[in-house]
Amino acid sequence: MSVPAAPAPPNASPNGSPDTSDAEIAEARAATATTRRPTVPAMEDILFQRLPVLDHGFVRVVDYMGDDAAVVQAARVSYGRGTKQVSQDAGLIRYLMRHWHTTPFEMCEIKLHVKLPIFVARQWIRHRTANVNEYSARYSIMDREFYLPEPDQVAAQSSANRQGRGDGFQPDEAAQVIDLLRQDAERCYADYLWLLNEDEGEAPDADAAGADRPGLARELARMNLTLNTYTQWYWKTDLHNLMHFLRLRADPHAQYEIRVYAEVIADILQRWVPITAEAFRDYRLEAEQISRTGLDVIRRMLAGEAVDQKASGMSAREWRELMAVLGRPA
Amino acid sequence: MSVPAAPAPPNASPNGSPDTSDAEIAEARAATATTRRPTVPAMEDILFQRLPVLDHGFVRVVDYMGDDAAVVQAARVSYGRGTKQVSQDAGLIRYLMRHWHTTPFEMCEIKLHVKLPIFVARQWIRHRTANVNEYSARYSIMDREFYLPEPDQVAAQSSANRQGRGDGFQPDEAAQVIDLLRQDAERCYADYLWLLNEDEGEAPDADAAGADRPGLARELARMNLTLNTYTQWYWKTDLHNLMHFLRLRADPHAQYEIRVYAEVIADILQRWVPITAEAFRDYRLEAEQISRTGLDVIRRMLAGEAVDQKASGMSAREWRELMAVLGRPA
Amino acid sequence: MSVPAAPAPPNASPNGSPDTSDAEIAEARAATATTRRPTVPAMEDILFQRLPVLDHGFVRVVDYMGDDAAVVQAARVSYGRGTKQVSQDAGLIRYLMRHWHTTPFEMCEIKLHVKLPIFVARQWIRHRTANVNEYSARYSIMDREFYLPEPDQVAAQSSANRQGRGDGFQPDEAAQVIDLLRQDAERCYADYLWLLNEDEGEAPDADAAGADRPGLARELARMNLTLNTYTQWYWKTDLHNLMHFLRLRADPHAQYEIRVYAEVIADILQRWVPITAEAFRDYRLEAEQISRTGLDVIRRMLAGEAVDQKASGMSAREWRELMAVLGRPA
Amino acid sequence: MSVPAAPAPPNASPNGSPDTSDAEIAEARAATATTRRPTVPAMEDILFQRLPVLDHGFVRVVDYMGDDAAVVQAARVSYGRGTKQVSQDAGLIRYLMRHWHTTPFEMCEIKLHVKLPIFVARQWIRHRTANVNEYSARYSIMDREFYLPEPDQVAAQSSANRQGRGDGFQPDEAAQVIDLLRQDAERCYADYLWLLNEDEGEAPDADAAGADRPGLARELARMNLTLNTYTQWYWKTDLHNLMHFLRLRADPHAQYEIRVYAEVIADILQRWVPITAEAFRDYRLEAEQISRTGLDVIRRMLAGEAVDQKASGMSAREWRELMAVLGRPA
Repeated sequence: MSVPAAPAPPNASPNGSPDTSDAEIAEARAATATTRRPTVPAMEDILFQRLPVLDHGFVRVVDYMGDDAAVVQAARVSYGRGTKQVSQDAGLIRYLMRHWHTTPFEMCEIKLHVKLPIFVARQWIRHRTANVNEYSARYSIMDREFYLPEPDQVAAQSSANRQGRGDGFQPDEAAQVIDLLRQDAERCYADYLWLLNEDEGEAPDADAAGADRPGLARELARMNLTLNTYTQWYWKTDLHNLMHFLRLRADPHAQYEIRVYAEVIADILQRWVPITAEAFRDYRLEAEQISRTGLDVIRRMLAGEAVDQKASGMSAREWRELMAVLGRPA
Repeated sequence: MSVPAAPAPPNASPNGSPDTSDAEIAEARAATATTRRPTVPAMEDILFQRLPVLDHGFVRVVDYMGDDAAVVQAARVSYGRGTKQVSQDAGLIRYLMRHWHTTPFEMCEIKLHVKLPIFVARQWIRHRTANVNEYSARYSIMDREFYLPEPDQVAAQSSANRQGRGDGFQPDEAAQVIDLLRQDAERCYADYLWLLNEDEGEAPDADAAGADRPGLARELARMNLTLNTYTQWYWKTDLHNLMHFLRLRADPHAQYEIRVYAEVIADILQRWVPITAEAFRDYRLEAEQISRTGLDVIRRMLAGEAVDQKASGMSAREWRELMAVLGRPA
Repeated sequence: MSVPAAPAPPNASPNGSPDTSDAEIAEARAATATTRRPTVPAMEDILFQRLPVLDHGFVRVVDYMGDDAAVVQAARVSYGRGTKQVSQDAGLIRYLMRHWHTTPFEMCEIKLHVKLPIFVARQWIRHRTANVNEYSARYSIMDREFYLPEPDQVAAQSSANRQGRGDGFQPDEAAQVIDLLRQDAERCYADYLWLLNEDEGEAPDADAAGADRPGLARELARMNLTLNTYTQWYWKTDLHNLMHFLRLRADPHAQYEIRVYAEVIADILQRWVPITAEAFRDYRLEAEQISRTGLDVIRRMLAGEAVDQKASGMSAREWRELMAVLGRPA
Repeated sequence: MSVPAAPAPPNASPNGSPDTSDAEIAEARAATATTRRPTVPAMEDILFQRLPVLDHGFVRVVDYMGDDAAVVQAARVSYGRGTKQVSQDAGLIRYLMRHWHTTPFEMCEIKLHVKLPIFVARQWIRHRTANVNEYSARYSIMDREFYLPEPDQVAAQSSANRQGRGDGFQPDEAAQVIDLLRQDAERCYADYLWLLNEDEGEAPDADAAGADRPGLARELARMNLTLNTYTQWYWKTDLHNLMHFLRLRADPHAQYEIRVYAEVIADILQRWVPITAEAFRDYRLEAEQISRTGLDVIRRMLAGEAVDQKASGMSAREWRELMAVLGRPA
């Protein structure tokens, strides 16, 4: 996990929020102050920088509060004198993670600026325990930016997993898909501008006289945009809920287009709270919940019994999932 | 405020959730049981029925918990012996509302099934204190239904209110707008079906051979839909948060397309908890927050002073807003 | 798991909330209505009845919304046409539980009336995703009821577990502890009444003339009560958060005095949503989270390797915990 | 509103959380770092210092995120290009406050360390939208510190306000109350230590041999403490919810013992976000919600009508409240 600290490519968008031009980011990064608060140099290194995601998206760390030591400090408030003997911070953090003591992790907070396609934003917003300020298409005009998948991401509906994608497309099929997505998005966006009367040049038909037409209310015109149009928001959450987000969205079953955001945020987590990030990997991300029946199967196997699906009491699907976890043939 | 109890028009959609065909609704309504729980006959009358909103949307009450008496009952737990003398339920409910004692209102709960355009859903979901199950376009195919405004709702961007709509369009201009919205939505939907390979008939260009093409993953194809496509969800919230939703969304400044949902829900509120609904109107919906300076202006006026904006210490905008509330010329 | 449906013993408390006398409960239970809402006969059987907990506490189901079928119904909204083949409700509920699809479980709601010692209430309230109306000692006078442990619950501080209890006390030691707790609680309560000037009889010293003294403000007098004094509240939460509560509080590591409440609520869960309750037991309560390292150990053992703690890469404590789960000697 | 920046008095408590001794605070304050994050010098001045409240309580700012400019920055993400003309930050913040646009205020966060009596903590915890780590009496031994009111705070139950206090006590009556509270708290605490077998010296009766007795489990012994015993916690919340807390708890109707905490936090607010704090005073703290009927009364009065209670359509109590707001005789 490593975060590219190098400057992101220039962002030519004229409509973006006021702090995302390269010049503004450089200016913000140049200003420093002295503080008594916990400070994480590896986070300061990337503060405000755009970490690119997908074709036009990004994640920027706008602010953070706390560090690994702040988790320990909060835990020690709870345990007070009783924890004198837990001498190592890492040990305490791993203990908290293992035993689902979640409140000390809520004592750290992070604020991100994210640019993302609307259909991804609609998944993301389902995580309710966060603060959000989204770019408003009632007030403002959306940028001419929409997500188009890379050819190797164009894939068929999975037959095994009703909500996922399966085999990739042939190059020419993929190109055809991408072309169609592009054409529809561009046409809808051009018509959006025409409805707003913001685009003097091209009327969709010859009779329309742009100059005199009233611009349609923005809150109405926006409905003509496609779901791959990019939006952006400030998103702020605590460390516990951030990890819950990562657990669901960095998972292989998550849709690729949100997973790549989760992966960039997982890199940020590693910079921010390295001890917590490692405990999170060991006890959450790469851990498994084994059911009552699954534990019974494991115990019988360890006792030397040759258990098969029939004898396990599990459904075929659960059995397959368990064998995959145990690295054994199903 | 009255809710049409008559059956809603038939819904021919083949893809909707399993309980929204007319036959299924009639079957669900025919099944009754005996209960000891608080029951509101006016809610039973409309239970499960589609209350139409916009061109294809609806609100259906799927379940409810509690009534006006349940608010009183919860308040009496708090106040116990101390409230012996507050003899009337209505008086207690009005007292709670006036003094922002919100927790007794959280003791009632409602569950709605709502069909709504995606751009409305994106506003709605910002109310985080609710439970939501939305139709998933990763699993399922979206219906061919999109919102198109009525001609009298097609209006220009407001010059006074940066997020609202102003003057209506001329009929021919409105018709042109609606046509454009329809064409883009229909083309995007047709291409969506083509991408899914669900529509054998019409390929977007002659070379495409539908039968052999793989269907694009649903989670990808959906990005081609426009934001006026209808989605649907189950939405469950408590009475306190329902009123907070109504306070923001039944407000004249709310966008028309969400306000009409709020108005139908306000009618449901009236059926469900009529005493609470009246107190809500008196102390929230039709009440006003008057600022420190505004109170000072009122006091001076009542004392006979001729206060104008200059003497008020208010900005021109605040002065206008205050005079509007007081029913006086600005 | 079975819930005693028999009537609870009479509650003579004169100060309780207005619906907990035996007569009021009987009256409430006698009133029935017809409803179209989902109804669970096994819940109706116990509705409003006090299910006793500890020496003076209870849990009463005051209302509920939804049932197992409501979970399925909400899930089908999400999955729509895509789930045609998941034919069985139980299979779908188990799938949701196994894969942490939590939102359908949020579509059911329950409202309980609970009487509990204040120190238990302080643990319980940490579950923030619930609605609460607590008896207010600012308004009302607290009952003369405090929790005293049974002799077999009087135990020493655990040496192994810094937050738990270890060996039981000898009978005479236990009796001494209980006597001391009783004396302090009774004296504090008597002085509380004296401060309120509610108890004309006994002044703490001979000079005090009860009749003429002003009663101390209730909000102040209450500070003299001990933490084992009973309070009561209405507590309302959704099924998902109820199970989260049970997972933490029905756990053997939870303090006995809250665990007994969790056990009564687990019985209620079984009555209310038996399919969900069984899935909850299999995939949560009696399941285990196995860490990345733990999975590695299991895989190596299954492959025939003789792994010991040293070779496992685990701390001694984690190794012990894993061996306990696997039913093997540490 | 001003915050004493001078060092707080020494805190001799041996059991407190690890960072509250004078030496530890001085050490933490001496360590500084360079940061690119928004920094508020007036907050740095008081960081980590104990701001005393009541007889043994305090509030310490442990960390903060954001400032007035961060509110503006988040609002500008929402409004983007559409807000070009709102040139002044103060104007925008006041606009947001006036029109209940609350999400930009959620973008700032504060973390406090608070020491407070348990009965105050029980009120405070009702604000659910916060993160909390409380000192655990299951793990640790509580300090010998309990709240005793100042003589001028000892007052009778109010006859007008069922939840408040009325006339003060005579000095000798007040002294008697305080003595009784002290005696009960001290006896309960001494018995608590005896139960824990932590106090070798004084057994409550001569027969008890301290050395050989087992110490009662801490989770049990704590129930013997009175509700004025001090506890402590880390409490973290966002600026919006902090103001909601202040609005309810800095109110004259709030109990004195929580109001003094709110007042210290209001001073911190003034240091942290002075523009927001002023807008909060003008549009929330010193503003009033005027009901539909109240607005009607004001309009009629301003039109020259002589309205009295009878003609107002208001209850006597509401009329009194309105006349008080308008500074007129009831």
